[in-house]
Amino acid sequence: MKDGNGLTRFGVSLSSKLLKDFDGLIARKGYTNRSEALRDLIRDSLVQAEWEAGDKETVGTVTLVYNHHTRELTHVLTDLQHHYHQTIISTTHIHLDEHNCLEVLVVKGKARDIKKIADRLIGTKGVKHGKLAMATTGKELA
Amino acid sequence: MKDGNGLTRFGVSLSSKLLKDFDGLIARKGYTNRSEALRDLIRDSLVQAEWEAGDKETVGTVTLVYNHHTRELTHVLTDLQHHYHQTIISTTHIHLDEHNCLEVLVVKGKARDIKKIADRLIGTKGVKHGKLAMATTGKELA
Amino acid sequence: MKDGNGLTRFGVSLSSKLLKDFDGLIARKGYTNRSEALRDLIRDSLVQAEWEAGDKETVGTVTLVYNHHTRELTHVLTDLQHHYHQTIISTTHIHLDEHNCLEVLVVKGKARDIKKIADRLIGTKGVKHGKLAMATTGKELA
Amino acid sequence: MKDGNGLTRFGVSLSSKLLKDFDGLIARKGYTNRSEALRDLIRDSLVQAEWEAGDKETVGTVTLVYNHHTRELTHVLTDLQHHYHQTIISTTHIHLDEHNCLEVLVVKGKARDIKKIADRLIGTKGVKHGKLAMATTGKELA
Repeated sequence: MKDGNGLTRFGVSLSSKLLKDFDGLIARKGYTNRSEALRDLIRDSLVQAEWEAGDKETVGTVTLVYNHHTRELTHVLTDLQHHYHQTIISTTHIHLDEHNCLEVLVVKGKARDIKKIADRLIGTKGVKHGKLAMATTGKELA
Repeated sequence: MKDGNGLTRFGVSLSSKLLKDFDGLIARKGYTNRSEALRDLIRDSLVQAEWEAGDKETVGTVTLVYNHHTRELTHVLTDLQHHYHQTIISTTHIHLDEHNCLEVLVVKGKARDIKKIADRLIGTKGVKHGKLAMATTGKELA
Repeated sequence: MKDGNGLTRFGVSLSSKLLKDFDGLIARKGYTNRSEALRDLIRDSLVQAEWEAGDKETVGTVTLVYNHHTRELTHVLTDLQHHYHQTIISTTHIHLDEHNCLEVLVVKGKARDIKKIADRLIGTKGVKHGKLAMATTGKELA
Repeated sequence: MKDGNGLTRFGVSLSSKLLKDFDGLIARKGYTNRSEALRDLIRDSLVQAEWEAGDKETVGTVTLVYNHHTRELTHVLTDLQHHYHQTIISTTHIHLDEHNCLEVLVVKGKARDIKKIADRLIGTKGVKHGKLAMATTGKELA
């Protein structure tokens, strides 16, 4: 079995009405399988707990939008990213238009360290907008 | 059966590792029953969808913190609440200290109307902090 | 000056376009005063940090929706609330319909303790939906 | 001036205590400039409103974590992404470990369309975790 994990099957009981509504919601979201939708809710609650704990290794993505004409900004961001090169795995750069750039960084480390790096990048003068998405290494999520 | 709903039972399959982690998480949260934890995740996703849709009748609570010494503030808040008296079901007032008050309003109506009322109250000059909690009428949630 | 705080005035510079858009947004939210809208953003970021720190005294509200016909539920919730009576300041009960009740509890204590109490209440079997709103004592927020 | 925007300067008044606390918070977040911290709060509230409106063109990133050994998953995800090729600008793939992959997609389109694509990808059987980060084209944000 993948990841060395056996499969378990267990029963959930709930009202027919609740089940019907849930089936409707997940169909609209594109799920073809109820177990998969439940596993996603379960995994999402575990990932949330991981980020609240703060000290486990996890992965996040930081999305930055900025104007590359802003004086020195490109240098400052590059320097900052190199400073954290052991934690930042990759950076993808998109030329949104003549002026605006979007960068997505994949960052791996302890939740609280990723948050700090995200704060530093988002707080850099000239960065218009920044957002941290809390993901996972996937290791603990079978 | 209550709410006229029959009970259904269905099987979920997932890896033993994922189930073990989830059982650990919900035990820490005080759940004594795995089905109940899953029903809570299911209901929460339905309530979230309800609020995103915007046009269904639902219930929210608005929590306001303010200093009652702020000139005219108590009158302004009371007037505003009376203006929306058909939507605001109740207001609980707590004297936090010599200066600070907390009020929790229970508001029932369409999601988008509740949001508007919350914005108006929170935006009132002198209100230090405000927060909308998105709940539900419970009717659709068996 | 109230709360023993002097007032300070400082200048913010930003592009005319950004200011125009912000003025539009806050007008739609019912603000009549730009400084107040900015103070609200500032206070909100401080309250968020307070909750992330976890160990400061703060105030939250817990909103529960449940069916009062559920066997034993009313007793269990009452017992739980009495167990935490030193932290739970007040409970407001609303009869939503024939079956559904809403309760809003005002809870005062350390952020992490309030979260634990909220988890326990929301996780109680039969509670359909629960939500914690993170507010503040207002003391530190002038 | 860049983006054709003039600069405006205006005054904000608030209590010295509130300003001191805010200055402390933003220093911890790495800001060197108070105006920049306020502009970030302002821009963030505008981006949030943009996503709530739903019909404006914006940009989001979708982060997916999955096990590439899962049967057919890589094909399904590739097919889905090609189906939406006009909206998905780029995909970055990270090999997290022997089994786990992370993909970050940059998606440009109407907020509600991006949400739908994110739901479809996250709901794909075998995707362990998915998260949408709501960013912006930057065009409207001077």
